[in-house]
Amino acid sequence: LEAATKAGKVRAPTHVVSTICDDRGEEPTYYGVTMSELITGDYGIGDVLALLWFKRKLPKYATKFIEMCLMLCADHGPCVSGAHNSIVTSRAGKDLVSCLVSGLLTIGPRFGGAIDDAARCFKEACDKGLAPPDFVEGLKRQGKRVPGIGHRIKSKDNRDKRVELLQNYAEKFFPATRYLQYAVSVEEYTLGKAANLVLNVDGCIGALFLDLLSSSGAFSAKEVDEVISIGYLNGLFVLARSIGLIGHALDQKRLQEPLYRHPWEDVLYTS
Amino acid sequence: LEAATKAGKVRAPTHVVSTICDDRGEEPTYYGVTMSELITGDYGIGDVLALLWFKRKLPKYATKFIEMCLMLCADHGPCVSGAHNSIVTSRAGKDLVSCLVSGLLTIGPRFGGAIDDAARCFKEACDKGLAPPDFVEGLKRQGKRVPGIGHRIKSKDNRDKRVELLQNYAEKFFPATRYLQYAVSVEEYTLGKAANLVLNVDGCIGALFLDLLSSSGAFSAKEVDEVISIGYLNGLFVLARSIGLIGHALDQKRLQEPLYRHPWEDVLYTS
Amino acid sequence: LEAATKAGKVRAPTHVVSTICDDRGEEPTYYGVTMSELITGDYGIGDVLALLWFKRKLPKYATKFIEMCLMLCADHGPCVSGAHNSIVTSRAGKDLVSCLVSGLLTIGPRFGGAIDDAARCFKEACDKGLAPPDFVEGLKRQGKRVPGIGHRIKSKDNRDKRVELLQNYAEKFFPATRYLQYAVSVEEYTLGKAANLVLNVDGCIGALFLDLLSSSGAFSAKEVDEVISIGYLNGLFVLARSIGLIGHALDQKRLQEPLYRHPWEDVLYTS
Amino acid sequence: LEAATKAGKVRAPTHVVSTICDDRGEEPTYYGVTMSELITGDYGIGDVLALLWFKRKLPKYATKFIEMCLMLCADHGPCVSGAHNSIVTSRAGKDLVSCLVSGLLTIGPRFGGAIDDAARCFKEACDKGLAPPDFVEGLKRQGKRVPGIGHRIKSKDNRDKRVELLQNYAEKFFPATRYLQYAVSVEEYTLGKAANLVLNVDGCIGALFLDLLSSSGAFSAKEVDEVISIGYLNGLFVLARSIGLIGHALDQKRLQEPLYRHPWEDVLYTS
Ligand SMILES: CC(C)(COP(=O)(O)OP(=O)(O)OC[C@H]1O[C@@H](n2cnc3c(N)ncnc32)[C@H](O)[C@@H]1OP(=O)(O)O)[C@@H](O)C(=O)NCCC(=O)NCCS
Ligand SMILES: CC(C)(COP(=O)(O)OP(=O)(O)OC[C@H]1O[C@@H](n2cnc3c(N)ncnc32)[C@H](O)[C@@H]1OP(=O)(O)O)[C@@H](O)C(=O)NCCC(=O)NCCS
Ligand SMILES: CC(C)(COP(=O)(O)OP(=O)(O)OC[C@H]1O[C@@H](n2cnc3c(N)ncnc32)[C@H](O)[C@@H]1OP(=O)(O)O)[C@@H](O)C(=O)NCCC(=O)NCCS
Ligand SMILES: CC(C)(COP(=O)(O)OP(=O)(O)OC[C@H]1O[C@@H](n2cnc3c(N)ncnc32)[C@H](O)[C@@H]1OP(=O)(O)O)[C@@H](O)C(=O)NCCC(=O)NCCS
Repeated sequence: LEAATKAGKVRAPTHVVSTICDDRGEEPTYYGVTMSELITGDYGIGDVLALLWFKRKLPKYATKFIEMCLMLCADHGPCVSGAHNSIVTSRAGKDLVSCLVSGLLTIGPRFGGAIDDAARCFKEACDKGLAPPDFVEGLKRQGKRVPGIGHRIKSKDNRDKRVELLQNYAEKFFPATRYLQYAVSVEEYTLGKAANLVLNVDGCIGALFLDLLSSSGAFSAKEVDEVISIGYLNGLFVLARSIGLIGHALDQKRLQEPLYRHPWEDVLYTS
Repeated sequence: LEAATKAGKVRAPTHVVSTICDDRGEEPTYYGVTMSELITGDYGIGDVLALLWFKRKLPKYATKFIEMCLMLCADHGPCVSGAHNSIVTSRAGKDLVSCLVSGLLTIGPRFGGAIDDAARCFKEACDKGLAPPDFVEGLKRQGKRVPGIGHRIKSKDNRDKRVELLQNYAEKFFPATRYLQYAVSVEEYTLGKAANLVLNVDGCIGALFLDLLSSSGAFSAKEVDEVISIGYLNGLFVLARSIGLIGHALDQKRLQEPLYRHPWEDVLYTS
Repeated sequence: LEAATKAGKVRAPTHVVSTICDDRGEEPTYYGVTMSELITGDYGIGDVLALLWFKRKLPKYATKFIEMCLMLCADHGPCVSGAHNSIVTSRAGKDLVSCLVSGLLTIGPRFGGAIDDAARCFKEACDKGLAPPDFVEGLKRQGKRVPGIGHRIKSKDNRDKRVELLQNYAEKFFPATRYLQYAVSVEEYTLGKAANLVLNVDGCIGALFLDLLSSSGAFSAKEVDEVISIGYLNGLFVLARSIGLIGHALDQKRLQEPLYRHPWEDVLYTS
Repeated sequence: LEAATKAGKVRAPTHVVSTICDDRGEEPTYYGVTMSELITGDYGIGDVLALLWFKRKLPKYATKFIEMCLMLCADHGPCVSGAHNSIVTSRAGKDLVSCLVSGLLTIGPRFGGAIDDAARCFKEACDKGLAPPDFVEGLKRQGKRVPGIGHRIKSKDNRDKRVELLQNYAEKFFPATRYLQYAVSVEEYTLGKAANLVLNVDGCIGALFLDLLSSSGAFSAKEVDEVISIGYLNGLFVLARSIGLIGHALDQKRLQEPLYRHPWEDVLYTS
C-alpha cells in the first residue's frame, strides 16, 4: 500500500485513496464482492457492513450479532436527545435528511456514544488483569465514571432487556466471552454501590465486540486496537439509530404536527 | 387518534405526539413488538424498519426486498458527492458523526434522491394509463426529465447490475409488478432516444416499491399516496448509503490521510 | 464567462468554477478587494457580505441595513426550534459546530425561512399591481397563507419592535420603499381579519430587500429576479441566527447542563 | 444563579436554563439590551456577539477587533475543505442550509479550528514563563506541533497579510499585547527551523484574544480560563467562515453548475 500510495502521490499529490470498494468495472464491488454475489449468495446487511467497514468477510454468528445490535439500537423512544431533535426539525417542515442529521448530531459522549469508550476501558483493564474494584476506584480517583455502566431508568431489578438478549446470544454462539465476563464482574461491583449502576446497552455491546474481534480469529491484535482506537463501534450505534430517527421524522410528517416551540414556562430565564 | 390528540392537547398544548414506539414499559417496543420477540422470533432489519416506518408487519418477501435495497444502495464508490464529502470531512480530522452527516447532506434531487420522484411520476402516469411516449414527451414539454431514467456511465449494453437483480427478485416473489412493467416500457421508449437513458437504480426501486405497496394488501390506496407524497423512499436510500459513508470515513482514518485541499489548477477562477 | 468556462471545461471536464474570491495571489481578495483595503478602508461586515454574496460594492446605507438585519435576527430566545435544538445538542456534550448545525437545520419554511417567500410573493403581487385584498384572497383560494404575515405572539397592539426599527431606517435612508408600502397595505388588510396578522420580521426584511435591490441602482431587473429566485435572503437569516445559536450552545456549556431528555409526561404515546 | 437554578429544578427537573437573552417582554433583549437600544445606540455586530457570547458590553476597540476577525476569516478561497464541501453540496441541488452545514462540519482540528488550541498552548506556556525553544521542543518531545504555527503556502518572505493587519491593529489599540509578543517570539524560533513555520491567522487570533481577554479589564482570570477551555474562539472562525460558505453555495447556484463527481483518474483504488 505504502509504495502504491507514494507512486500515486508522485503522479498527483492531491488525489484520493480509497480501499473499500470499486465502482469502475462491470459491476460495483464491496471489498471485491460483486453485487450479484451479494444477492445470490447468502449475504445480509451485516455482511455488507463487514465488507465496507472491516474489509473482510466475517463468520455468520458475527454478522448476525452485528444485525442484532442494529435491531436493538434502532430506537429508544421519542424522549432521548436524538429523537427529540429529529422530531423538532421534522415539525419545522424540513426535508428528511435534515431531520435525520439534526438528531444524529446529538450522538456522542453522553448519548449513545459510550460503546467505544466502554470497549476502550474494558479492554485496557481486562488485558492488564485489573480487579474490578481497582478498575472502578481507579477511574473514580481520576474523577471519571465507568463508561457503559449506569442507566437513568433501568436498575438491578428492572434490567434492560436488550442487554440480556445480547448476553444470551453471545454465550451461545461466541467462541469466547472473556470481556463480557469482565464487564459483568465490574457490574457486580458497581451494583454494590447503587442499584442503577447496571451494565447498559453501550457497555454490553462494547464488551461483546471486544470478544467478537479477539475470538473470531479474523483480526490481529493490532487490528483490534485500531478498530477500538478509531471508534468503529459508535458507527454501529449511529447506523442503527438512523432507522429510528427517520421513523420519528416520518411519524411527525404523517401526523402533520405544527412547528415546535418549547414552552416559556419550562425555561428558567436567569443571568 | 384525533380525539386522543385533542384530549392530550387540552392537557398540555405544547406536548409531543409519538406513535411508532414505546419505551416506558418493562421492555421497549417497536410498534408494539417487544425486544424479546424481535430477537427470539424470525425478525430482521427489514422488519424493524417496517415497524418503525410503516407501523405494520410486512410479509417476508417484502422485508427481504427492503433489505436487498439497503444492501444494493449501501455504496457506489468514493467519487459520488456523498462519499466525497465524507472523505473530505474525515480527512479534516472530524468525528464519525460529522463525516457521515457532511456526506448525507448531498443526498437530494440530483444524488440518490430520485426514488420518490420516480415513484411519484410512474404512479401518476401508470394510474392514468398514459402511454410511455406521451408520458416522456409530456414531461419534456414541461422542461423536465423523467426521474429514474438515465445514468452517466451505465447504458443499454452495460446495464446496472443492481437494477437487474432487483427486477429478477420482484418478478419471482411479488404478487404483481404492474409499475415495474410500466417503468420498463418507459425505458424501452427512452432507449430509443439515447443509449444511456436506462432505468436506473432509483427508478427501479421507486417502481418496485409502488408494486410492493399496492400489491401486498398491507396498505390502503390512501396510505400508498401518503407514503409516496411524504417521501419514505428516499429514507431508504439515505439509510442504505449511511453504511457506505461510514465505511469511507473509517477508511480515511485508517489510512491516516491528511487534510484535503482541492488543487488550485483544477479550479477556474473567473468572475 | 460562458466562453471561459467552456475553455476551462475542455481542459478538465470535472473542474470547479469559482467567481467570488481569489486566494492565489500575494493577498486573498474578496471579489477583487484585498484584505489590506478591507481593513484600512472603511469596510464592515456588511461590505464583506456584499462582495462575497452579491459580487459588488453596495452604498453605505445598504450595507448598514444588512448589518441591522444581522443584529436584529441574531437571536429570539431559547424556545424557538433552532435555539432549542442547539441547546439539546450542547447538553449532549457535542462540539460547537455540531451544536450550531443541529439548530441551523430547523431553519426553513416554518422557522425563519419566510423572508425569501415573502419577497417572492410581494414582488409578484406588487409588480402586477394586485390590490391587497385580491392578493390575500387569491392566496387563500389556493389554500396558502401570506408569507411574512402573522405572528404567534405579536399583534396589532403589541408590535414587533424589530419591524418598526427596520421600517424607520428604510424610510429615512432608502431611495424608495415601494415594496414596503405594499407590504404595509397588505398588513392593513389582514389586520382587519385578525389582530395577530401583523407584518412580521421575515415579511419586513423581505419587502425592504426588494426595495434595496430595486432602488439602489446596483442591480438589473434580471439580477433582482435571480437574487429572489435563488434565495439569498434566507442566507441572511441563517447567518444572523448563527450568532444566537452559538451563544446558546456556549451558555449551556458554561452552565454545565446535563443531557436533556424530554419528559415522558409531556408526550402523548398513541398509535 | 446556583440557588435560582435549584429552585427551578425543584419545580420542574427537566426544564431548560437560559441566561443570554429574553424574548418574553415588550421587546426581545440580548443580555438585557433592548432591540431599540441596539439600533438607536452605537452598537454593531461585534457588540451583539459580545452580549450573546460573553454576556457583557466590551469596549469599542474590542468589538471592532472581533469584527475585523470576522471580516478576515470570512473566506479563504474555494479549495479549502469547508468551501469545497459547500460547493459540492450546492451542486447536488440542495438547499442553502444544507450547503452551509456540509462545509461547516469540516471545521475542526485541522481546518480553522486551531484558534482555541493556540490560545490554550500560548497561555499555558507564557503564564509559566517558558522560553520559546523550551516550549517548542517540549511539544515536539510529546510528538505535537505548535498550534497556530505553520502554513502550507505562506512563508517568512510571503507573510499572511491577515496576520500583519491584526497585529498592527492590536499594537495600536490594545492596552497590552503580552501574548502576541510571546507568539511572535515563538515564531522567531520556529522560523529558524523552516521558512513556512510562520505565525498563522489562527495563532495570531488566538494570541490576540488572550491579550484582549486579559488586558481589557472585563474578565476575571477565572473567566479567561473558562473562555479558553470551553472554546469560544473557534466559534468566531465558524461564524466568520459561514459568510464565505454561503457565498460559495450561492455562487454555484448562480452558475448553475451540475452535480460534482470526483474524477476516477484522481483516485487511487487500492486495498
Ligand atoms: C446513569 C447515570 C447518569 C447515573 O445517574 P444517577 O443515578 O443520577 O447517578 P449520580 O450521578 O447521582 O451518581 C450517583 C453515584 O453513582 C456513581 N456513578 C454514577 N455512574 C457511575 C458510573 N458509570 N461508574 C461509576 N460510578 C458511577 C457516582 O459517582 C455517584 O457516586 P458518589 O455518590 O460516590 O458520588 C450515570 O451512571 C451515567 O451517566 N452512566 C453512563 C450512561 C451511559 O452509558 N449512557 C449511554 C446510554 S444510551
Ligand atoms: C444521466 C443524465 C445526467 C444524462 O446525462 P447525458 O447523457 O449527459 O444527457 P444530456 O443531459 O446530454 O441529455 C441528452 C438528451 O437526453 C435527454 N435526457 C436526459 N436524461 C433524460 C431523462 N431522464 N428523461 C428524458 N430525457 C432525458 C435530454 O433531454 C437530452 O435530450 P435532447 O438532446 O433532446 O435535448 C440524466 O439522464 C439524468 O440526470 N438522469 C437522472 C439520473 C438519476 O436518476 N440519478 C440518480 C442516480 S443515483
Ligand atoms: C402566526 C400564525 C401561525 C397564525 O397563528 P394563529 O393565530 O394560530 O392562526 P390560525 O392558524 O388559527 O389562523 C387564523 C386565521 O388567520 C388566517 N391566517 C393565518 N395566517 C395567515 C397569513 N399569514 N395570511 C393570511 N391569513 C392567515 C388563517 O387562514 C385563519 O383564517 P380562517 O379563520 O378564515 O380559516 C400564522 O400567521 C403564520 O404561520 N404566519 C407566518 C409566520 C411566519 O412568517 N413565521 C416566521 C416567524 S420567525
Ligand atoms: C503547515 C504545516 C502543514 C507544515 O507543512 P510542511 O511544510 O509540509 O511541514 P512538514 O509536515 O513536512 O514538517 C516539516 C518540519 O516542520 C515541523 N513542523 C511543522 N509544523 C510545525 C509546527 N506547527 N510546530 C512545530 N514544528 C512544526 C515538523 O515537525 C517537521 O520537523 P522535522 O523535519 O524535524 O520532523 C504545519 O505546519 C501545520 O499543520 N501547521 C498548523 C496549521 C494550522 O494552524 N492550520 C490552520 C490554518 S487555517
